[in-house]
Amino acid sequence: MYDSVIQDLIDELGRLPGIGPKSAQRIAFHLLDADPEDVRRFASVLTEVKATVHFCATCGNVTVDPECRICADPRRDATVLCVVEESKDVVAIERTREFRGRYHVLGGAISPIAGIGPDQLRIKELLGRLQDGVVTEVIIATDPNLEGEATATYLIRMLSTLGVAVSKLASGLPVGGDLEYADELTLGRAFEGRTSIPQAAAPG
Amino acid sequence: MYDSVIQDLIDELGRLPGIGPKSAQRIAFHLLDADPEDVRRFASVLTEVKATVHFCATCGNVTVDPECRICADPRRDATVLCVVEESKDVVAIERTREFRGRYHVLGGAISPIAGIGPDQLRIKELLGRLQDGVVTEVIIATDPNLEGEATATYLIRMLSTLGVAVSKLASGLPVGGDLEYADELTLGRAFEGRTSIPQAAAPG
Repeated sequence: MYDSVIQDLIDELGRLPGIGPKSAQRIAFHLLDADPEDVRRFASVLTEVKATVHFCATCGNVTVDPECRICADPRRDATVLCVVEESKDVVAIERTREFRGRYHVLGGAISPIAGIGPDQLRIKELLGRLQDGVVTEVIIATDPNLEGEATATYLIRMLSTLGVAVSKLASGLPVGGDLEYADELTLGRAFEGRTSIPQAAAPG
Repeated sequence: MYDSVIQDLIDELGRLPGIGPKSAQRIAFHLLDADPEDVRRFASVLTEVKATVHFCATCGNVTVDPECRICADPRRDATVLCVVEESKDVVAIERTREFRGRYHVLGGAISPIAGIGPDQLRIKELLGRLQDGVVTEVIIATDPNLEGEATATYLIRMLSTLGVAVSKLASGLPVGGDLEYADELTLGRAFEGRTSIPQAAAPG
C-alpha cells in the first residue's frame, strides 16, 4: 500500500513495545512531516545510545561510563545493597530519595514461562559482591508480581546462609488509593504487614 | 537521573505523537536491550525515509518516485479526483478498493485555531489540475470533523462555478456499530442522508 521505505518505517515503529499498527502509522507520518534536522537528531541518538551505553560491570545498571554514577559515587553507602530487576527500577527508587545505598540490577526476573532461570540473571555477580563482607544488608526490591515474588523467594533462600541482613519492600495499600478499590491480594498483604502503633501513655 | 544520552533518547521518543513519558522510558529501555543490528536498521530507515520520501508533484501524496504510484498508473481513472486531507487518507480509501480515480492531497484542513487557511493547503494546485477539463468529477473526502467540514464547505463553494460534478462522502451510522451508541450529530446526519428504498411491485 505504501512505498517500501515508508512501510519499513511503519514496521520498525510497530515493533516497539506498546505501539500498535495505527500508532506506528501516525508516528511515521509525523516523522515524514517533521523537520529533517529533528529526524536526523533522533536517528543519531539511536545510533549513539547503542554505541555508548553498556551495563555497569559492578551493578548491571545502564551507563556510558566504565562504572555507573551510583557505583562510582563514594558518598553512597556501600554496606546496603538494593536488588532490583531492571535499570528503570533504579530510577524509580532514586526518585524517592529514600535510599542512599547501592544497587544490584538482576536484568530480569525468574520466569519459567519465558525460559528465564536464575542462571540468566546476574545472581552470580550478586554473590560475588557479598564475598568481602562489606555489604551487611540486602534489600530485595523485585516487582510485586508472580515473577518478582518467585525471584525474591529464590534470593531470600540463597542469602539466608550468608550472614547478611535481608529485607523485602513492604506490600500494602498504595498511598493515595482507595481501600475499596484495592484487589484482595493487596488488601491481604496490607493486613499481614500491618504496623503496630505504639500506645500513648495514659493521661494523668 | 539518567546518563545524558539515555535521557536524550527518552526525550526524542517523548516528542513522538501519542507517546507519554512512561512509554518513552519503556521504549528507550527496550531499545537499550535490543540487538544493536535492529536499532541500527531502525536508525537507518529513519535517515533513509527523510532522504528519499517527498510529496508527489501532482497530487501531494508521499512517494519515493518523481510521481506517486497512483498518479503514474495509467489504469487509474483520470476523470475523477478524490480530495483528501492527508496521505494516510489515501491509504484508507485505497483499502476499500471502491475508488479507481486519482487523488489530491491538501496537506491538512482549514483551521483558524491552528492558523491554517486555504493558502497553506494545496488548493491552488487543485485548481491547476482542473484547468484542462479532463477531470469531470471531484469527490470531497475531508475528515468528518469541524476542520474537515469547514474545508469541504470552502471547496464546494469554490468548485461550484467550475462546471465539474462535486460530491462529498456520505455521513451516517458506521457499519457494524450500534444505533444506540451513535452520537446525536451522526444520527442526525444519518436521518438527513437517508436513502430511499425503491418499492417492490405489488404481488398479484
